[in-house]
Amino acid sequence: MQPTVVAEAATRLAGVVQHTPVFTSRLLNEWLGASVYCKAEHLQHVGAFKFRGASNAVLKLGAQQAARGVAAHSSGNHAAALARAAQLNGIAAHIVMPSNAPGVKRAAVDAYGASITICEPNEAARMAALRSVCEETGAIEIHPFDNDDVIAGAGTAALELIQEVGELDAIIAPVGGGGLLSGTCFAAELARRSMLVYGAEPSGADDAARSFALGKLVPQTFPNTICDGLLTSLAPRTFEIIQRRVHDIITIDDDATRRALSFLWTRTKQLVEPSSAVAIAAIRKHPELRGKRVGVILSGGNVDTSQFATLFESTPAAN
Amino acid sequence: MQPTVVAEAATRLAGVVQHTPVFTSRLLNEWLGASVYCKAEHLQHVGAFKFRGASNAVLKLGAQQAARGVAAHSSGNHAAALARAAQLNGIAAHIVMPSNAPGVKRAAVDAYGASITICEPNEAARMAALRSVCEETGAIEIHPFDNDDVIAGAGTAALELIQEVGELDAIIAPVGGGGLLSGTCFAAELARRSMLVYGAEPSGADDAARSFALGKLVPQTFPNTICDGLLTSLAPRTFEIIQRRVHDIITIDDDATRRALSFLWTRTKQLVEPSSAVAIAAIRKHPELRGKRVGVILSGGNVDTSQFATLFESTPAAN
Repeated sequence: MQPTVVAEAATRLAGVVQHTPVFTSRLLNEWLGASVYCKAEHLQHVGAFKFRGASNAVLKLGAQQAARGVAAHSSGNHAAALARAAQLNGIAAHIVMPSNAPGVKRAAVDAYGASITICEPNEAARMAALRSVCEETGAIEIHPFDNDDVIAGAGTAALELIQEVGELDAIIAPVGGGGLLSGTCFAAELARRSMLVYGAEPSGADDAARSFALGKLVPQTFPNTICDGLLTSLAPRTFEIIQRRVHDIITIDDDATRRALSFLWTRTKQLVEPSSAVAIAAIRKHPELRGKRVGVILSGGNVDTSQFATLFESTPAAN
Repeated sequence: MQPTVVAEAATRLAGVVQHTPVFTSRLLNEWLGASVYCKAEHLQHVGAFKFRGASNAVLKLGAQQAARGVAAHSSGNHAAALARAAQLNGIAAHIVMPSNAPGVKRAAVDAYGASITICEPNEAARMAALRSVCEETGAIEIHPFDNDDVIAGAGTAALELIQEVGELDAIIAPVGGGGLLSGTCFAAELARRSMLVYGAEPSGADDAARSFALGKLVPQTFPNTICDGLLTSLAPRTFEIIQRRVHDIITIDDDATRRALSFLWTRTKQLVEPSSAVAIAAIRKHPELRGKRVGVILSGGNVDTSQFATLFESTPAAN
């Protein structure tokens, strides 16, 4: 992959995706000790950056491929994004979701007209269910992150951010499967600036940090974190990009993520999901970023009403 | 009072208050069956429109008055707003708060450098505490709504909204003490358009609706609602304005407010407070507004972390 795919994706997605706002907050800057530019992908269609990658992948299908429809397994935002992208392009979407997927995400996929197949919440069951759906329907799989077009689409968020705010010392994106972080690397390189790219990862699902440190891919087993969008392992494709281009991966425990989440909700009034707050917590944790101009991708805002209580049950004070 | 005071306040407040964004949402429009323009006062300084009125009142003080400082009793947003406005102008603020005021609001007042006097949560205790504070310090009382300058400042939110989106069929503001609704009336009149002005009020604190229907001021006793910003009674000053200029006051039960709050949080990702959601619920309830262009003042976004759980404990489904 060449970084230029992100620029091509941006052209393709113009008028299709929301050009989301970048917001700043005096209170947030004070709390973090840095000048922070937040790319508000929670205000993207379907409430997450995932709509960028899914749309880019769907728009790149030829007519014959599109007629077959698309399929994916996803616990959440990619599912909604692909369903919505397919709906807008008048093609079928088949989504395999684990039985423990948040209700709000299942409802969204359903509302976007996709057909849903529920499976046991483990990798083997999901893979088997997806294979069988693709065989039965002829649908083309669009992987949530192990897909060049999805990565290129994801990178357009960072590209818009950099184009809007100019020089940055650093840019941070949360890392689960690594699609957003990979696309962010390409966007940063495309801007030909010296900005450092960081990943932010929950310590309860730290396969990217461990893989990055070891120099070889270590799959995630038994993830345990409130960041329900960041449970998956890197793919070889994303690991290779991240290994070569990312400056560092910062791991964050859930208490720090809760503090950041609480701060974002109560001070900026932006309802982002825990998987976004982890990137804000990373800025607070990392002394190298003190006093710097830092871009951050707030990746999504899909939180179930039922989570409001439990997320903050044991929130430590913000200061 | 003449409507022109709102235009004068807008000039005075330029560069002082946030010119908050107006947002729209396809999902919200579908849910409400109307084209809705949301004035995002939860993104105002101190997280509420109250900063407009407090700033206008503080800026209108002469040098001698300013030197005496300002004082108010308020359970919440006016307290924070006056404290911040005073702080920015380098004058002292003395705030009397009831012992049951939300923690986040008390912390904000404290952070803005005001001196706080806690009293029993009843009108008599608050009045007595305020009188004693004013006598001891010489501070000038800035009432949360029974004050021409505060009303004029509050009206600038609607003025900005109307100037930005043009013709509206109706504009809705929540009503507690009536300052925001009164200012909104003046802004609508100033625009010299035929738009109707509505108040939205919790049925558990419906003194404005009852007063409006009866044609005489009925004080609120024993309010019972999740809308903690709308507990107070109208003042004769605001009642007179509202009686002459408001088209109707729509009362909303807390379950409907919870549904609107849940919708705003989960779909628009904007963390507004219940006292704002009541105005959205009013659009949904009122058949006259179907298909219309409706402006709404989302008055604030100050919600305590501890409220996240309880607010949605018994939330009925949004549809």
